[in-house]
This record gives sequence, structure tokens and C-alpha cells, in this order.
Amino acid sequence: MVQNNSKLPSTACAIIIGNEILSGQTQDANVIFIAKHMAKLGILFKECRFIQDDEAQIITAITECSPKYSYVFTTGGIGPTHDDITSMAVAKAFNLPFTRNNEAFKRIFSVVPQRSEEDSRQLMANMPEGAILIDNPISHAPGFQINNVFVLAGVPDIMQAMLLTLTPRLSGGQQRHSKAILCLAFESRIANDLREIQKEHPNVEIGSYPTWHISKEKGVKLVFKSFDLNEIETVERKVMAMAEKLGYQAEEIEI
Amino acid sequence: MVQNNSKLPSTACAIIIGNEILSGQTQDANVIFIAKHMAKLGILFKECRFIQDDEAQIITAITECSPKYSYVFTTGGIGPTHDDITSMAVAKAFNLPFTRNNEAFKRIFSVVPQRSEEDSRQLMANMPEGAILIDNPISHAPGFQINNVFVLAGVPDIMQAMLLTLTPRLSGGQQRHSKAILCLAFESRIANDLREIQKEHPNVEIGSYPTWHISKEKGVKLVFKSFDLNEIETVERKVMAMAEKLGYQAEEIEI
Repeated sequence: MVQNNSKLPSTACAIIIGNEILSGQTQDANVIFIAKHMAKLGILFKECRFIQDDEAQIITAITECSPKYSYVFTTGGIGPTHDDITSMAVAKAFNLPFTRNNEAFKRIFSVVPQRSEEDSRQLMANMPEGAILIDNPISHAPGFQINNVFVLAGVPDIMQAMLLTLTPRLSGGQQRHSKAILCLAFESRIANDLREIQKEHPNVEIGSYPTWHISKEKGVKLVFKSFDLNEIETVERKVMAMAEKLGYQAEEIEI
Repeated sequence: MVQNNSKLPSTACAIIIGNEILSGQTQDANVIFIAKHMAKLGILFKECRFIQDDEAQIITAITECSPKYSYVFTTGGIGPTHDDITSMAVAKAFNLPFTRNNEAFKRIFSVVPQRSEEDSRQLMANMPEGAILIDNPISHAPGFQINNVFVLAGVPDIMQAMLLTLTPRLSGGQQRHSKAILCLAFESRIANDLREIQKEHPNVEIGSYPTWHISKEKGVKLVFKSFDLNEIETVERKVMAMAEKLGYQAEEIEI
């Protein structure tokens, strides 16, 4: 991975393309993988969109997101069937010719040779002109990069493998540290004190997540994130002192 | 639920607000519930965005999505802590004053009375002027509707309860029928025949989803959706005949 030497961290956006999630048929599994991977790379994952297999929606999402973020990852819609329209839509979004990529063609038929002139797999070799291939170690049909947009498969195993193979092209940064405390109080009982601690430590992002619906205990999970581990630990001590003062149990937990 | 008598179905978009999902800390559980609920109501769920607890991002998402869809649902960021900024951002998006809603204030303190002038729960009564409340049968602090935007809690139990209580305000339509076939073939082997069947039946949406990574069988799940059950069954027969012709096992499965 390239080290990003500017002060501002790189940012990322994902566009998850496919009717199957928005129709309620499938639970998405790609977002959390991308999220964890970006966190590890020190890239700020700022937005994710789910859209349908719809050309206009794909073009809009690419056109809106590509200028806004360092990297845009799309998943889904690059197979050989009639509902796989992502590659052509990406070409249209960048106003580029949509043509056969000969190297992609070669790789697609490298293991199981072309069966006939009509072999539908050849459709997966059609890409925007100038596409840089993304290796697919699982099923061979490559993804591709055009400008800052990385076009990946939707099948989780393949998406993950592609994301790992393209990682050296990304410019990452410092990874944020994070810690968490579970405090057995209603969120509203600690909100004012917590607000003061947040004001004193603007460089630590404090997230507050009620957990009582899960644990049936009236609790709140407090998550602290920062580049500065010492400052996180200062915040943790202040939060533990606050809990003691207000009479609530609190303990450090796994994030 | 109001019956939508226009030819075009109502459309929906969800905006999932919160750093916890984009940081990879939490697996989202709200999207699939909203998706299934919309499908049941005959409302086309066209887009979903995950964004951070960031005022500019919330305003952009509301401003872009509210004119595009019949309904926009936001989840998250309406609690009493410093990171709950959704309500104020929605007020800014609509250029409305952000003031105390007296009925919300009353409901918030209806079960556990206000403890002091500083009780942080009062913050949850601040809303855009003209907000129509959304009942919260679980923890009392209401959500609200402003124009076509429905502002809901992020905690799944509460979000779900709010979505159910507001359902009578939505104008739904006919529910689409759906069926599915699992065909034990590589997707590319059936893609051309499938494309022909799709051309013959443009009113049936045919989705094709490779499953081999899950089952380790080289399979593809074919999903058929339409308002016309007869036409789905015609498509199913054609797909079964195609599989037989090409020499692949196929069977109807649960969608």
C-alpha cells in the first residue's frame, strides 16, 4: 500500500449494485468487509450506496461519488447475464467507448477455453477503454479500475479477493486506535457529562450506542476513536470517573 | 395503508446515519427489515445510503433524495447525546426553524418524569417546525415526519416499531409475486438462453445470482418477479425446459 503523506486521509465510497438486497431477498455481506478493510488501511469510509441494476442509477451514483471521494468501489453486475450492466454503465458515466479488453478476454478463457463464438463469458471482457484490470484469483474474469473507480464482483468471496489484490494501488494512512466501554446506564443519564468530555477532547471521536435492546440491561456502549492512543486512555479514565460519580457500573469491553 | 391508484408504484429510499456501520464496527440490521417491509407494501425500494453522523452529509443526502423518491426514511442520530445530530440537520435541509415540539416533550417525560432542568432527554423534543410525530411504543421519544422524510431511531427494535406505526401514512401498491429456481450450472452456460427468455417476457424481472461459492455446487439461483403470477409460471416452465435441453439439474426453491 502506498503511504499517503498529505494531512487529509484518503476517503472511500462503496456502491453496492443489485436488486437482490433492495428487494429484501439477501442480507448484504460486502459492506462490513469493505468497512473493516478501509479501517485497517487508514482510509476513511465515508459513504455507501445500495442501488438497483439500473443504468441511470449507476451513472448517477458514479457521477456524484467519483469526484467526492479518493476511491469508489462498486460491487455487482459484472457477470455474463442480461442483468449485468455495471461495466457498460461505468463506461457511459465516464463517456468512454465500451470495447473488448483483450487481456481480460485471454484471462477469462485461460482455464476453461472458449466453447463457441457465442460463449457468454466473452461479455465479461467488455470494459471502458483504458480500464486497468483487477486480478480475480477465484473465477478469473477480472474486475477493472477506471480513474478512481474500482469495479468489483458482487459475490462476496470474489469481491474480497479482488479488494485484496488491488490494495497496493490504494494510498492509505495511519490507522485509528479504538477502545470501548460498556456503561450500565440509560444514555440520557450520561449524555450531559459525555458532551463535556467530548468538548474537552475534540480529537477523540466518541460514539454512543444504546445496547439495552440487545442485552436487556439498560446499557450504552461508548466507543472512542483517535490517532492518539494516550488521549483515548485519558478519555476512558474520565468516562470511568463519570460513571462512578453518577453511580453506574462501567467496564472496558471489546469494540 | 393508502392504496396508490396511479400506474407508477411509490418509491422509497433509506438513509442509514451512523459512524458505527461505516467503521466496520456493526453489521447493519435495518436495511433488510425496511426492504422486506417495502416489498410487502408494494413500494419500490430503489436506494439506500449509509452516511456518517456528519451534518453536511445528512443535508446532502436529504436534499438529493427527497425530491427523487416518494418516501425517504432516515435511521439513527435522534438520541440525546452529542453525536445525535440528525434532527437539526433535517431542519437545515428543509430550511426550517429547529424548535421544541411540545407534544414530543410531553411524551418523552410521560413515563419517567423530567429529573431536572438539564435532563438531556429534552434534546429529543427539538425538531423542525411543522414536524408530524411518529409514535415510539418502545422508548417513547417519538420520531417525526417532515414533508416526505420520515426520521426514525437507529436501534433496530425501535426503528421497526416506528416503521410499523407510520405505515398507514404510506401509499402502497400491488405486491409483486416472486419465485425462484436453482439451476446447477455455471451462470455463463445458461446466460444466452436466459437472455432470450428475458426478451420474451419483459414484464418478468429475471435475476441471476451465482451460488457456487456458498454451496460448492456450480449453481445459479434464478429469481422471477412480476405482478403477473401466470407469466412467472410461464417463465419458470421455459427455464426448466432450457435446463433440461442443456443437461443441467434444476428445481424450484424458496426465494
